[in-house]
Amino acid sequence: MSINSLGRLLRLSTWGESHGPAIGAMLDGCPPGIEINESLLQVWLDKRRPGQNKYTTQRREDDKVEILSGVFEGKTTGTPIQLLIWNKDHRSKDYSVIKDKFRPGHADLTYWHKYGNRDYRGGGRSSARETSSRVAAGGVARAILQEFLPSIKILGYMTQIGELAIDRTNFNAAEIEQNDFWCPDSSINEKWGRYVLSIRKKGDSVGSMVEVCVSGTPPGLGAPIYAKLDSDLAAAMMTINAVKSVEIGDGVQVASLQGSENNDEFFLDNKKVTFSSNHSGGILAGISTGQDIIVRIAIKPASSILIPKNSLTTTGESTQVVTTGRHDPCVGIRAVPVAEAMVALVLADHFLIHRGQIGHIKDYSFDNQ
Amino acid sequence: MSINSLGRLLRLSTWGESHGPAIGAMLDGCPPGIEINESLLQVWLDKRRPGQNKYTTQRREDDKVEILSGVFEGKTTGTPIQLLIWNKDHRSKDYSVIKDKFRPGHADLTYWHKYGNRDYRGGGRSSARETSSRVAAGGVARAILQEFLPSIKILGYMTQIGELAIDRTNFNAAEIEQNDFWCPDSSINEKWGRYVLSIRKKGDSVGSMVEVCVSGTPPGLGAPIYAKLDSDLAAAMMTINAVKSVEIGDGVQVASLQGSENNDEFFLDNKKVTFSSNHSGGILAGISTGQDIIVRIAIKPASSILIPKNSLTTTGESTQVVTTGRHDPCVGIRAVPVAEAMVALVLADHFLIHRGQIGHIKDYSFDNQ
Amino acid sequence: MSINSLGRLLRLSTWGESHGPAIGAMLDGCPPGIEINESLLQVWLDKRRPGQNKYTTQRREDDKVEILSGVFEGKTTGTPIQLLIWNKDHRSKDYSVIKDKFRPGHADLTYWHKYGNRDYRGGGRSSARETSSRVAAGGVARAILQEFLPSIKILGYMTQIGELAIDRTNFNAAEIEQNDFWCPDSSINEKWGRYVLSIRKKGDSVGSMVEVCVSGTPPGLGAPIYAKLDSDLAAAMMTINAVKSVEIGDGVQVASLQGSENNDEFFLDNKKVTFSSNHSGGILAGISTGQDIIVRIAIKPASSILIPKNSLTTTGESTQVVTTGRHDPCVGIRAVPVAEAMVALVLADHFLIHRGQIGHIKDYSFDNQ
Amino acid sequence: MSINSLGRLLRLSTWGESHGPAIGAMLDGCPPGIEINESLLQVWLDKRRPGQNKYTTQRREDDKVEILSGVFEGKTTGTPIQLLIWNKDHRSKDYSVIKDKFRPGHADLTYWHKYGNRDYRGGGRSSARETSSRVAAGGVARAILQEFLPSIKILGYMTQIGELAIDRTNFNAAEIEQNDFWCPDSSINEKWGRYVLSIRKKGDSVGSMVEVCVSGTPPGLGAPIYAKLDSDLAAAMMTINAVKSVEIGDGVQVASLQGSENNDEFFLDNKKVTFSSNHSGGILAGISTGQDIIVRIAIKPASSILIPKNSLTTTGESTQVVTTGRHDPCVGIRAVPVAEAMVALVLADHFLIHRGQIGHIKDYSFDNQ
Repeated sequence: MSINSLGRLLRLSTWGESHGPAIGAMLDGCPPGIEINESLLQVWLDKRRPGQNKYTTQRREDDKVEILSGVFEGKTTGTPIQLLIWNKDHRSKDYSVIKDKFRPGHADLTYWHKYGNRDYRGGGRSSARETSSRVAAGGVARAILQEFLPSIKILGYMTQIGELAIDRTNFNAAEIEQNDFWCPDSSINEKWGRYVLSIRKKGDSVGSMVEVCVSGTPPGLGAPIYAKLDSDLAAAMMTINAVKSVEIGDGVQVASLQGSENNDEFFLDNKKVTFSSNHSGGILAGISTGQDIIVRIAIKPASSILIPKNSLTTTGESTQVVTTGRHDPCVGIRAVPVAEAMVALVLADHFLIHRGQIGHIKDYSFDNQ
Repeated sequence: MSINSLGRLLRLSTWGESHGPAIGAMLDGCPPGIEINESLLQVWLDKRRPGQNKYTTQRREDDKVEILSGVFEGKTTGTPIQLLIWNKDHRSKDYSVIKDKFRPGHADLTYWHKYGNRDYRGGGRSSARETSSRVAAGGVARAILQEFLPSIKILGYMTQIGELAIDRTNFNAAEIEQNDFWCPDSSINEKWGRYVLSIRKKGDSVGSMVEVCVSGTPPGLGAPIYAKLDSDLAAAMMTINAVKSVEIGDGVQVASLQGSENNDEFFLDNKKVTFSSNHSGGILAGISTGQDIIVRIAIKPASSILIPKNSLTTTGESTQVVTTGRHDPCVGIRAVPVAEAMVALVLADHFLIHRGQIGHIKDYSFDNQ
Repeated sequence: MSINSLGRLLRLSTWGESHGPAIGAMLDGCPPGIEINESLLQVWLDKRRPGQNKYTTQRREDDKVEILSGVFEGKTTGTPIQLLIWNKDHRSKDYSVIKDKFRPGHADLTYWHKYGNRDYRGGGRSSARETSSRVAAGGVARAILQEFLPSIKILGYMTQIGELAIDRTNFNAAEIEQNDFWCPDSSINEKWGRYVLSIRKKGDSVGSMVEVCVSGTPPGLGAPIYAKLDSDLAAAMMTINAVKSVEIGDGVQVASLQGSENNDEFFLDNKKVTFSSNHSGGILAGISTGQDIIVRIAIKPASSILIPKNSLTTTGESTQVVTTGRHDPCVGIRAVPVAEAMVALVLADHFLIHRGQIGHIKDYSFDNQ
Repeated sequence: MSINSLGRLLRLSTWGESHGPAIGAMLDGCPPGIEINESLLQVWLDKRRPGQNKYTTQRREDDKVEILSGVFEGKTTGTPIQLLIWNKDHRSKDYSVIKDKFRPGHADLTYWHKYGNRDYRGGGRSSARETSSRVAAGGVARAILQEFLPSIKILGYMTQIGELAIDRTNFNAAEIEQNDFWCPDSSINEKWGRYVLSIRKKGDSVGSMVEVCVSGTPPGLGAPIYAKLDSDLAAAMMTINAVKSVEIGDGVQVASLQGSENNDEFFLDNKKVTFSSNHSGGILAGISTGQDIIVRIAIKPASSILIPKNSLTTTGESTQVVTTGRHDPCVGIRAVPVAEAMVALVLADHFLIHRGQIGHIKDYSFDNQ
């Protein structure tokens, strides 16, 4: 019941602080024989890496992942995979000014309450830097899915920055990869750019909305009660820094719907079950339906801002806090590959659980009867 | 890694189908010496019981809970507590008409895909009836909290039915208990009543929004990464039938906020840390701040409706499905005590984990320095 | 991390006290479609039931198991299987005389130290009665093995009572079932009978040794480090009441061996790997070799005896304790079906884990190359 | 349910192969504020390090442990502690000769059966090298015990090499640390020395018996059924390479005892419960009694020997195997600090679990009444 682990058969455990010597992840339970190498994982880390464009933090980290175990001659062996990333650019000095102050919106105060200590160097364990190790491990999960469920495609993108939401009628999946904001709507791109730069200029930050759409999942992954696919996705998403909501399918909108609208009807199309709509977001009763799985998260604005906020010193004096240093005006941008990684980890775990209990993805489709 | 269990040190496992002989819950890890008896647990079950007013299903279940183990001479012994509820009014015949059809929006199709079988008797394991056993177990969790953290109060209520949301300026906690809808805004009561009856009349169902507010939680419960308090709450909430979103604090609204708005400032008031606002919903970096914990869930409209929907038979023929029998026009009403129970279970578990790792709720408040 | 659960994918949780209303077991993670019914499980319970011959306790329990969930129309559904056994003959009055005394060798004192309470009615949770629920759950595990690995045969038997050990040259598997002692050596039967009756006559009890031999296990079950097959077997065996040692293969004897004696050599016989010996007891580096798995446990003499022993009252006065009531002169006799059940549960769990991680029992035998 | 993890609240996960770049351990759930540094852990690793005397392998490893996370300014923070040991002297060439052969008694064949692959470089994950990371993590567990239960002393020693057992009447704890064999009986020292050298000379290996005695454990640690202290100790011990039996207290000898001999009587001595004997090895019904905890393991002779044994090549040809390279004539010598580490990890975990469920070590001793 490790408090730093996630997953059941495929189990991720991460460790490390943003300003310690290194961070890393151990992934246990990976099937043997999967092709994995450092370049393959680096692709995903490079997507997440800060300092890539003018909209994200200028902290420079190579974020080079090293595989220390579990892979031999280019393939997984079935033993634990240890992924390590050295911290190179951690400039602890940036943080000395806030050493004796609690930063509003940060983990400072709650850590101090819980543990009676504080790693004031950039947030320690609570830094978003920890998510690098998830992205690396997510790369392994993607390779597992590629091997066993190659039809699965995981696509993350931003749907909102501040009050500026995309127009879904402009949705263009091809746009996402080439866009600074992983945005599927090219018409909003310039607007978002100007807006984020204006936020950065005034030293503020802004919230955002990220969605992950998974196509090609076979029906049958998940379980009815406490290992529901949506419950595990919700838990995994909510562990990402700054996430304050998780929605599946229509999410909060279902409160306004009637059953006659919300029930996705189905019929047989070329001997395949086909749905009239996807209000459920690809999951019914905790189990995948075969439709696109839709998960959406709201990410709060980064709490590190240049605008002074009232706070306390560690000895209980009133103070004001300004967080200088290098920070993100919109942390949601870098959350996209992290959210994708978490989805990949949950799906790969559920595939293994399913295979353990049921044996294989069964095909009860009607042409077999 | 049981797929029908929840929690770490305080571990809930539930079992049973809606139309089998009984359902139940085993709660493991309960501290010894807590006063528990069947009447005390029955209070919470009676809150959830169907057939209580004209807005809920007319299925009649006594829902009498029996304690089969773990309690001796009125107190918990520290061994597993088995709670059993017999199914009395399960009328399997009601379901014969849909035996060979998949009901849209139900678990029918996904179960069939996963397990290759179907318990057509009212949904089997996926029936909301399973939540009775959670409510009973939640009663034990409440007793644990009452013993060790008596300042905690857990208050669940509805904030929206269909498109009709409460006016938060009318919020009156005292109203909730005496209200057919667990609604804190008496001004909307009559409107909701008329609306739900109109939904019932046309054989449809409607979605809703339920919120749980926990006051009196000490700071320090939770953990920074994968045992985050908000992650565990999200997982627990998402296991409740029909829930499609989980929000903490401002939830989806944070996407629209800027850091200068969203950061809750704090100051010292009478030697106690006090906050200017509670956008964070009482949780920062996975750990409780001491403010009210706010969790909000959207509940989809029940999929069992009297309006015909397109579907398939189990042999792949096109058909239409109407779910006759006794069902809820607004299942959210009965979800309120369930959501409260899940919150109680998560908090009690986190209290025990915290006590295990840290020893006790530490008081690092400034008057001790 | 339930403290009353065992297993990973196939997860057993038991509950109940010897003198409460009932005991039971929940088995989670069972594959769907396995034929299970109460008669099938009853077979194993009847083997364990007390009062069957003059060598065991005269407590009369029907030990009728009821299946409350997880089975529909004669087959498992994939949801949790709840097995319940009512306590019928629990005569609490028998225990009143020792209510205020700690019985030497019993759980009385350690429970009191741990929990600050005592269920003096027959040992409460620590009674061997709890093992009935394991035997019932073991029946399900056997059915899983029968379905997927039908070559597996699990055979438990006694090899020693007190200082009287069997002569292994007389080993006759066919003898075991028809023997009051599950003894494979008919030549020692009468001797054991006289010995156990003499022990009973003087109100004493005696220790014993039980061995379980599993033939037909495919190679490849288990894992190299902390989910070693032998580690999981050791844990499972050591949870059985009164067990004080667990040996795999040659067990304690390996301390005296040299590598040149202990290494099991192998060669190819008809394209199948064949071993010259089985010192390893069928497990190398935590993984099954395909040879017979041999597990052996020493069971201490029951602590309930009619011979007075020095002890203390619950208020700290010196006293002497005699445990009247119905008890077993040699509890090891009834441990045989319990040990078999635990082995079945561990193997079925490891089969599912293996299938989850690896996909199927691979056949790397040499005729495929 | 990680298959490379051990423990519940204090959770050890190890990773790494003997001939990969590094091995390591992550320890999760450690209380904050414990003083830890690399020198403190190095003490225990140095005890285990090979090449220290003429009786163990001449492989030279510095085995320098590095703390990569979870410790800040000399104290644990409550976040995961990552311990890393680089592999320096791994000379893969030594193993090329056995690349295409299965070594009898090794993991080679079972790994190949399970995973379909083989890390022929020194056994990969199954090498005893993995135990270094346990010893490092055990150092943290010792520091936890030192902080919270300082009365606990963990003492491991050898009691038998081959057929040469110590004479327990010569037991002298002070002898152990200064003895090449961790032997408490100085009278057998020279005999063991000659014997082990003769084994080495003929290229053979020999089994041994190691015992760990824990004094000063408070009563109350453990749990009645599946988290029994003895069950968790048995599981932990059986995960150590080459261990084939685990005994608690009198172990296999209890089979020969009668209840009137085996029951440890108790009386009050200066208001403290005192026992007449310790047949139970300090554990009754899964819970510590307060007496010395006695755990004993038999360790098989190392399978790597210079004496040719019959085996097969990976393509199924008959062959003979001789394992050249640097190996231990008696691996049990280096198992002593490993066994101590495992005991420390289990006890520290059970302390935290106890504190979580019960709150503190309760003192129900009679002077409080």
